[in-house]
Amino acid sequence: MEDNKSIERTELDELGEFGLIDRVTEDFPLRNASSLKGVGDDAAVINHEGYRTLVSVDLLVEGIHFDMTYTPLKHLGYKAAVVNFSDIYAMNGTPTQIVVGLGISNRYSVEALDELYAGIRLACEAYNVDLVGGDTTSSRSGLVISITVIGMAKEEEVVYRSGAQPNDLLCVSGDLGGAYMGLLILEREKAEYLANPNMQPQLSGFDYVLERQLKPEARKDVVARLKALGIKPTSMIDISDGLASEILHLCKESGVGCQLYENKIPLDPSTSKIAKDFQIVPSVAALNGGEDYELLFTINQKDYEKIQQMSEDVTVIGYMTADKGIAELITPDNHVIPLKAQGWDHFKVGSEELGVRSEE
Amino acid sequence: MEDNKSIERTELDELGEFGLIDRVTEDFPLRNASSLKGVGDDAAVINHEGYRTLVSVDLLVEGIHFDMTYTPLKHLGYKAAVVNFSDIYAMNGTPTQIVVGLGISNRYSVEALDELYAGIRLACEAYNVDLVGGDTTSSRSGLVISITVIGMAKEEEVVYRSGAQPNDLLCVSGDLGGAYMGLLILEREKAEYLANPNMQPQLSGFDYVLERQLKPEARKDVVARLKALGIKPTSMIDISDGLASEILHLCKESGVGCQLYENKIPLDPSTSKIAKDFQIVPSVAALNGGEDYELLFTINQKDYEKIQQMSEDVTVIGYMTADKGIAELITPDNHVIPLKAQGWDHFKVGSEELGVRSEE
Repeated sequence: MEDNKSIERTELDELGEFGLIDRVTEDFPLRNASSLKGVGDDAAVINHEGYRTLVSVDLLVEGIHFDMTYTPLKHLGYKAAVVNFSDIYAMNGTPTQIVVGLGISNRYSVEALDELYAGIRLACEAYNVDLVGGDTTSSRSGLVISITVIGMAKEEEVVYRSGAQPNDLLCVSGDLGGAYMGLLILEREKAEYLANPNMQPQLSGFDYVLERQLKPEARKDVVARLKALGIKPTSMIDISDGLASEILHLCKESGVGCQLYENKIPLDPSTSKIAKDFQIVPSVAALNGGEDYELLFTINQKDYEKIQQMSEDVTVIGYMTADKGIAELITPDNHVIPLKAQGWDHFKVGSEELGVRSEE
Repeated sequence: MEDNKSIERTELDELGEFGLIDRVTEDFPLRNASSLKGVGDDAAVINHEGYRTLVSVDLLVEGIHFDMTYTPLKHLGYKAAVVNFSDIYAMNGTPTQIVVGLGISNRYSVEALDELYAGIRLACEAYNVDLVGGDTTSSRSGLVISITVIGMAKEEEVVYRSGAQPNDLLCVSGDLGGAYMGLLILEREKAEYLANPNMQPQLSGFDYVLERQLKPEARKDVVARLKALGIKPTSMIDISDGLASEILHLCKESGVGCQLYENKIPLDPSTSKIAKDFQIVPSVAALNGGEDYELLFTINQKDYEKIQQMSEDVTVIGYMTADKGIAELITPDNHVIPLKAQGWDHFKVGSEELGVRSEE
């Protein structure tokens, strides 16, 4: 599909592994003083003196994490990088370097690979991150992208999942459920297209949720604003698997419980509307839908007035309790429902339904 | 094949992603003071104050880099880790942490995954490296292993590929070509087995080359010995793609040439014998065979006497010249042959010959 865009098609084997590495990495200038040596040696050399180094890896597999039918390669590259940056922001750190491992089958052209790296480049520019290494190899079937991100934080700035205390306020940035609605729209149009290849996909009017799915952003701005306001979260995690799953992580790691108010969960109007069209309760889309990459964090109550200054970006959705392991959703009519993680679980997906959310 | 060994078979979906991560990472105690936080948060936290951080990634794909027909999973895990450590030693550094990205199809059981991690654990123990993070997901076909290694070195200790000077001596550790011979033996026995499944593989007598292929070691000892002797290589690289390819890398990055003496190339007697059985000139196996993971490095001539003390482990095989880009092999009868990289080139391998060396 990616080849429709370009007339040129250069086969991967025309360049060979080293030619390919040279080509895809040539336009990645180093931006961070800590990036002493990038691509081109056995390892990159990084200097983080006096800082903590943060490291995280994500593996994205075609047919599991993305569907080439509707994922433009440039968007895919951008997203693959950004979701990794998000992990570093979730530690209250700053992403500084990435190394990219890529497995590609020869049904991809060099131009397709250029598109993928154009997306990675755009993400690196937007977030001031250096590409400092990689490994490119062939793959028997489809595309595999492994991105490892390195970040830094001052010792006293690192925020773990484990620091939440009873009575801390539970906060979330942005709004939730949109990325999942975007996925449902794309899956619906794909199914229509497969049934009738002459059909034009109906994507207009869904811009917000499609962008949430295809081109998510990491909340660099929220981390910076919190710092500027002098708020250090007591615990933090990014929302990749859905709100419920992430709350349970914070509770487990911190040894606390949580009371979550359903009517406080931030939803974009378009997310709510589309959810209803799909006969999904909007808050359930937020609780169980993944890939929003918003930040979920807890703050001490003393910071309540400060966080009000971020009310456009941050919503207080509940509070932590001393009831270790008990996380509950309080519905608008005061029903209490135990929270369960029903997010992405790639291992429960049958081979015929790859990429589709499990709903057990 | 991995399931023949164990009676138990637990399906991956019985544990789910988080259960799986808990299971495979539970027995990895942190050994390095710099590993402040390992598995279980958005990112690992590493403290390398006053040191350079080194980072390298390798992606291993089933059917391209390994063949499950003859690769025990424990060996595969060990090798996947060790080849990454080798990249850090090749910078004259010490590997300290790894993060592991794993894509697996559900034809693998949890017990198979345990085997793979047992190999990674063994490597971490042998090389004093901490597993500090990972990402485990399903894969549509086969196994994908992405390992990112983090290492450290004092600022003044880092050795790049680019530091070789004219008249430096070219040195190599251990002996070469063995891993390639091991691969040829395994491929031969696989072909025999496919032709006649009742046949017993004939692997006895090939122990050395099989171990070179299936369970390579990184030359931690050589790096330590060089330090003890006060020798700092002027340039260094590890041999993953074959001697010729790596020499060309050093020449290119350092802007020098090289004269290599064919009769100095270290070969184990069993490598030479097997090469002849396959009608391959033994030195060609060393020049073009990959995966030996020995160290190739250059030293100043003033260190010649010191390096003699390592003559059991290190061989001087040539010297660097000012003839930028001209790398030549001097045969025993004084013929001069331009060196060409004919090592692994995974993109040139047709889909029917995956895993087989290209010979163009």
